[in-house]
Amino acid sequence: MTTIQDVAALAGVSVSSVSNVLNGRTDRLRRDTLQRVQDAIRELNYRPNLVARQLKTGYAPLIGLLVPSTANPMFGELAVHVEAAARDAHGFRVLLGNTHRDREQESRTFDDLISLGVRGVILASSRTDEDHLDAAIARGLAVVSYDRGGDGDTRSRIDHVSPDNMLASRLAVQHLVAHGHRRLALVTPDVKTVSRTLKRQGFLQAAREAGLADHAQVLEGATRTGYGDSNLADEGYAMAGRIAAMPSRPTGIIAINDMMALGLMAGLHRAGLSVPGDVSVIGMDNLVMTAYANPPLTTVEMPSADMARAMVAMVIERLAQPALPAREVLFQPRLVERQSVAPPPAPASPRPRARVPRKTSA
Amino acid sequence: MTTIQDVAALAGVSVSSVSNVLNGRTDRLRRDTLQRVQDAIRELNYRPNLVARQLKTGYAPLIGLLVPSTANPMFGELAVHVEAAARDAHGFRVLLGNTHRDREQESRTFDDLISLGVRGVILASSRTDEDHLDAAIARGLAVVSYDRGGDGDTRSRIDHVSPDNMLASRLAVQHLVAHGHRRLALVTPDVKTVSRTLKRQGFLQAAREAGLADHAQVLEGATRTGYGDSNLADEGYAMAGRIAAMPSRPTGIIAINDMMALGLMAGLHRAGLSVPGDVSVIGMDNLVMTAYANPPLTTVEMPSADMARAMVAMVIERLAQPALPAREVLFQPRLVERQSVAPPPAPASPRPRARVPRKTSA
Repeated sequence: MTTIQDVAALAGVSVSSVSNVLNGRTDRLRRDTLQRVQDAIRELNYRPNLVARQLKTGYAPLIGLLVPSTANPMFGELAVHVEAAARDAHGFRVLLGNTHRDREQESRTFDDLISLGVRGVILASSRTDEDHLDAAIARGLAVVSYDRGGDGDTRSRIDHVSPDNMLASRLAVQHLVAHGHRRLALVTPDVKTVSRTLKRQGFLQAAREAGLADHAQVLEGATRTGYGDSNLADEGYAMAGRIAAMPSRPTGIIAINDMMALGLMAGLHRAGLSVPGDVSVIGMDNLVMTAYANPPLTTVEMPSADMARAMVAMVIERLAQPALPAREVLFQPRLVERQSVAPPPAPASPRPRARVPRKTSA
Repeated sequence: MTTIQDVAALAGVSVSSVSNVLNGRTDRLRRDTLQRVQDAIRELNYRPNLVARQLKTGYAPLIGLLVPSTANPMFGELAVHVEAAARDAHGFRVLLGNTHRDREQESRTFDDLISLGVRGVILASSRTDEDHLDAAIARGLAVVSYDRGGDGDTRSRIDHVSPDNMLASRLAVQHLVAHGHRRLALVTPDVKTVSRTLKRQGFLQAAREAGLADHAQVLEGATRTGYGDSNLADEGYAMAGRIAAMPSRPTGIIAINDMMALGLMAGLHRAGLSVPGDVSVIGMDNLVMTAYANPPLTTVEMPSADMARAMVAMVIERLAQPALPAREVLFQPRLVERQSVAPPPAPASPRPRARVPRKTSA
């Protein structure tokens, strides 16, 4: 490897002159000296040694990003935003860990990150418990937790960045109600996370406010072990079969995220039901591909690029000031209207869209 | 940070005893010594310092993974497989760079990787030229290139791992021909990459062998600058409008990848055409979500988990033996049949599926 000494030798200057150039202290350098150093850096392809910098500052210019799996496009997109923000705004690079929501895998990743000199972590991954996070923080990690809310613990040193999940559910409920739906459902995996719990609360609360408390139900997927890359869509697909068989089925369904919504729509089609003719569906996230679903999916967009930028800024700030009090920031979701929501089919009415007359609970 | 000295002090043993435990040389240790060291490691949460190991070996236990964007689920899935293989089989972690096929971004990432002590890179990213790769290799990087084929240059030190792209096109053509299609098209972005060129060659060759040389056409998307996360689907969607307006439109269409196929299907639906009633569509990759498309997408699966394992093994092998001759490995794709392919509509025939009678070129 080329060293700073090599550069100094080729340029015929002292090592401290090269160091001054590298650190932008060029105001007191002679112009031809600056030019010779820059030429030598270019000729030798010299790059300042970040390992040395790491030994000096105590950490590498790296952010660990722990997500369940980038095969879920929600996290694949988040990774793009986090990586761009870290690189462009702060000169940091991103170390990726897919943890499949496995606590053991998360802990092992924390260990490796610490060993590698990484001290800043964005975690979009774990379930409701944070004990293993406390251990990691005690060992010097700065942690920003994505989409898990905070628990109001003032001693906490974990920053939280989330979309307003209760509002997301509320926007979806209001959109369905505005289209005339009265029998509503939220479909969700039965594995609990903070964000899923909040979406559930928001759904039930908004339904109550619309006077539909008796007509709103939460439908949980069957338990699956692990977090495979197709689980969410699989669960949505399986749920559709159950919904199609219900005697008084919901006409307006909100899926906890877009992957589940896409699986749900496929399952409804498979069961001979039309979206939105028979059943309206709303997703959450606004994944790139939802615009190309058939029908294009109405969804609640979570501002992941904005959240990524905020998380990167917060983790780098906390690296410099580990004792900062914990912060909690909520970002506003918005409804993206496409073509998967329509008025519900009228029961035993002359409206031609109602293929199968059925009882209504209204 | 806890040091090896802290562990030795707590266990009441020498540093070299701790070192022996860490390196698995336990056969000559007394059993209670081993136990005390293990207890001390656990109590102090001690992890061997990988930075120190890096200074000794000259590289960090990290693999750089450069992809266009993990927001394209093709690369989001590849990242999962690469990360799992690096971690589970070799104890390496993955540093992610989304380069959007931008040469300048790739070069800057190589620079940063070198500065960070990373010496092994998997590159799924660049266009047809490899000059900037040569420069990176000259500076000590071990590079495995994904899906770019090799150029047979025996002096090269770049390993190549790819799916057999020509075979992928052939499988798709044969499947369409077996269903009776004679007017075929391959839709592709106009930006050239090695793999797209091979898919094009395979398509034209297979069409020729089926006696359909005059009925097979390559349709190129409009030039777009950069590589946005929705470009491929956007291009497929836009292409569908052009295809719908063609006087003698193809009945069997192969998209260069699944994202483009999903956009194409959405555009065909938008234009009032049915898939597969009016037009059959085949994608490539077998993304998780293609099983949940409407209709479920027939596609050519590229074995990305197998390729990821091979690439990780090759790059780590090359780290230890930089002078290894360049290797090139092809992996076999396979057709995954779903519901987006059916026989073509019969022209001016009594078959009820042909909604719009039109001329045939047969």
